[in-house]
Amino acid sequence: MAITESSLPTRLVALVGSGHVLTGPTEMSPYLTDYRGNYHGRSLAVVKPANTEEVAAVVKLCLEAGVPIVPQGGNTGLCGGATPLPDGQSVLVSLSRLDRIRALDTRNDTICVEAGCALATVQEAAAAAGRFFPLSLASGGSCEIGGNLSTNAGGVQVLRYGTMRELTLGLEVVLPDGRVWNGLRGLRKDNTGYDLKQLFIGAEGTLGIITAAVLKLFPAPKARATAWVRVSTPAAAVALLARFRATCGDRVSAFEILGRPLLELVFKHMPRCRPPLSESSDWSVLVELTESSASVPLPALLEQALDAAIGAGEAVDAAIAATESQADAFWGLRENANEAQKSEGFAIKHDIAVPVSRIPEFIACADAALRAWQPGVRIIAFGHIGDGNLHYNLFPSSGEDEAAFIARADEANHIVYELVTGLEGSISAEHGLGQLKREAIYRYKDALELELMRTVKYAFDPLGIMNPGKVL
Amino acid sequence: MAITESSLPTRLVALVGSGHVLTGPTEMSPYLTDYRGNYHGRSLAVVKPANTEEVAAVVKLCLEAGVPIVPQGGNTGLCGGATPLPDGQSVLVSLSRLDRIRALDTRNDTICVEAGCALATVQEAAAAAGRFFPLSLASGGSCEIGGNLSTNAGGVQVLRYGTMRELTLGLEVVLPDGRVWNGLRGLRKDNTGYDLKQLFIGAEGTLGIITAAVLKLFPAPKARATAWVRVSTPAAAVALLARFRATCGDRVSAFEILGRPLLELVFKHMPRCRPPLSESSDWSVLVELTESSASVPLPALLEQALDAAIGAGEAVDAAIAATESQADAFWGLRENANEAQKSEGFAIKHDIAVPVSRIPEFIACADAALRAWQPGVRIIAFGHIGDGNLHYNLFPSSGEDEAAFIARADEANHIVYELVTGLEGSISAEHGLGQLKREAIYRYKDALELELMRTVKYAFDPLGIMNPGKVL
Repeated sequence: MAITESSLPTRLVALVGSGHVLTGPTEMSPYLTDYRGNYHGRSLAVVKPANTEEVAAVVKLCLEAGVPIVPQGGNTGLCGGATPLPDGQSVLVSLSRLDRIRALDTRNDTICVEAGCALATVQEAAAAAGRFFPLSLASGGSCEIGGNLSTNAGGVQVLRYGTMRELTLGLEVVLPDGRVWNGLRGLRKDNTGYDLKQLFIGAEGTLGIITAAVLKLFPAPKARATAWVRVSTPAAAVALLARFRATCGDRVSAFEILGRPLLELVFKHMPRCRPPLSESSDWSVLVELTESSASVPLPALLEQALDAAIGAGEAVDAAIAATESQADAFWGLRENANEAQKSEGFAIKHDIAVPVSRIPEFIACADAALRAWQPGVRIIAFGHIGDGNLHYNLFPSSGEDEAAFIARADEANHIVYELVTGLEGSISAEHGLGQLKREAIYRYKDALELELMRTVKYAFDPLGIMNPGKVL
Repeated sequence: MAITESSLPTRLVALVGSGHVLTGPTEMSPYLTDYRGNYHGRSLAVVKPANTEEVAAVVKLCLEAGVPIVPQGGNTGLCGGATPLPDGQSVLVSLSRLDRIRALDTRNDTICVEAGCALATVQEAAAAAGRFFPLSLASGGSCEIGGNLSTNAGGVQVLRYGTMRELTLGLEVVLPDGRVWNGLRGLRKDNTGYDLKQLFIGAEGTLGIITAAVLKLFPAPKARATAWVRVSTPAAAVALLARFRATCGDRVSAFEILGRPLLELVFKHMPRCRPPLSESSDWSVLVELTESSASVPLPALLEQALDAAIGAGEAVDAAIAATESQADAFWGLRENANEAQKSEGFAIKHDIAVPVSRIPEFIACADAALRAWQPGVRIIAFGHIGDGNLHYNLFPSSGEDEAAFIARADEANHIVYELVTGLEGSISAEHGLGQLKREAIYRYKDALELELMRTVKYAFDPLGIMNPGKVL
């Protein structure tokens, strides 16, 4: 019997049970708007399968009905990649009920988890086994592993441990035709053909639905040492990073830069946050070393590197956290960056990457070009300078009309993206494309590369059923 | 004008110059036999382009002529992946003249190199800039980066630094239609769509020709500490690895296991090699710690871990290298493994991986099954136990007829591969498939995965012009 729009929910209920198919506007609404509130989609139904088999059955049914599918995890993405289009023609598949930890192998240092596991759940399971799962995001309590994989999530520990891609050994994926590919291997080495899992990581659900993954675990760090460092320029911060890498190696697990305007916003909106040093600089760096050996004198190592950096003019001065709570307070300044910006109002946001060596050039050129564009623009720059990744956000000058500023967002994006492209960078370092940057990519990515991406999309999803209107 | 077999060399000469097209049997012969001497191919011509544009022109000409292409680097592969088929219908494209280091960026910790650079050249360039490129292979002086990428090479430092895939940030590839994809980005984070480079890494030249790459560099290690450890069982070695990872973290840069029969072969054929300890065990482990900080007491850390391991019964006894030359002597035992086996004669070789936790089970079951198959078989097991990767090779018993043994190789392969597959392992951990394991993979890989691989192959190379008869 042909599936109609009105019979689809009944057919879905037959697959996953009546409590797990939502069709009312109120019950669907949390799934149809993105975290930032920028995208508002519509959907025929929200389906919540319990396991991989149910996901596969739902995909087969949608394929038969010719209905596109939007996979969704914790719905914390920043580019609208998990929000359906407003046309209301798709089914949203929530993976949140696939939340089991299937296995943890301390001898192989791996954990096998389902897509709907919250990141924090994975971190806690690793810690309970004396291991460490390093992906670290502000949304850790609510974001889910499937979304982390689909956006190749980054965060503050990439410098040492890599992005989600580098933390992944195997995947299980429901393909666009409803078949299940079991690539759940826990191997460090496997050269038996094309590494298919790499295609699904970072594909934002456009090639299939990731249902489970084997992830790497690491030795639990036994000590950390954290410093707040004032630096005079971004170039000094880059030189300081090189010094830390040379003298402390892989212990440098985080290296974040924070511009003065960001800190001013944090102090304004979070009155409990205090400056770590009495003087302030245009730029500050938050550096953290971690160690697996309890016998290495980590604070001494940090102090030596900082003394040498101050002597060499790379740092102005620095505060080393004397206690865990002081270290947490330093981190609080960084972790409140998003909340403080949210409290301040609308911003034109960018998540860019350039080679680390070209960060100073990017900041100098972008600042100059944007001040020429809008003299009073307030530039909030901060982020993972160790990965060449900056969050580079723009607020209107205090007197300016917000609506007028918003209307000119495309101009600002154009200025930033042109510069990034000229510096061989990326217009989306860690947030993905989703709906937000899907159009922009046509301008800033090589035409041949886009053609190859379409070739892959067509090869895996010839009917275009998976997450239409995202990425490509 | 249509290109004929007789006009092809002239047309190739017009593209790359007369000195760079070889057609005589003698001058072609070094390119037509693989390193182990197992594969003997034929070719219409060996072409040696000087740069990416010439590679692209050669590919376009071959496409027009309907002539398949076999890319080749240093010709040190172990599975016949770079040896043409015996049909003599292909053109061999040697990348060795693309040997420039295009750029080195110490602030971004990256190096951009062409495919024909020898691995040793890249290591030396990194060292000259105070950096470290960690890929380490016995063939380092002659293998080339393009081959390292196409086989996703591994080696002894994977435990700490990952395989070639994890060391690569960007690629330049000549596609099967002769167009050049410039993916030479030096970014730690870039989430703007599918990560296409991952497809070409490990594809053994079946999807295109890699002509250049941007590789990661690391801080140069400032110290190393090396120990030779006797252990009683593979399970003890796995427990020892867990202890080292817990107490020394990422400093554990190599962790190799060597079975007694391998060491006996080394001592037999390399009279200058001496046992590091007076007593011998069934199994030995070579462990090395490296450090970027000169102020960490590395030998003390190694000694503490070994004392605790001996106390816990994980290790029997151990020798810590007192000098660099002693450390080199320990490594000499490992590095002479291949030469010693070559001197001994023919062996049935396997390069397998299983989860680290299942190595003891693999060794126990494989030994038992092979002794049931052939009671006197001599089993030479050694390798990168830290990556779950064993080289597991079989020699005939001393009196046995070698030809009869060779004739039964398929039976031995079947026993080993069935076991590996049952343990969720890989039948080719780091050597690739090439011609050697192309048939085997049909039996041991999931049919759906093979179908997806063929989908990718067809999408990128619909005419099947790239390295036919390899991988798929």
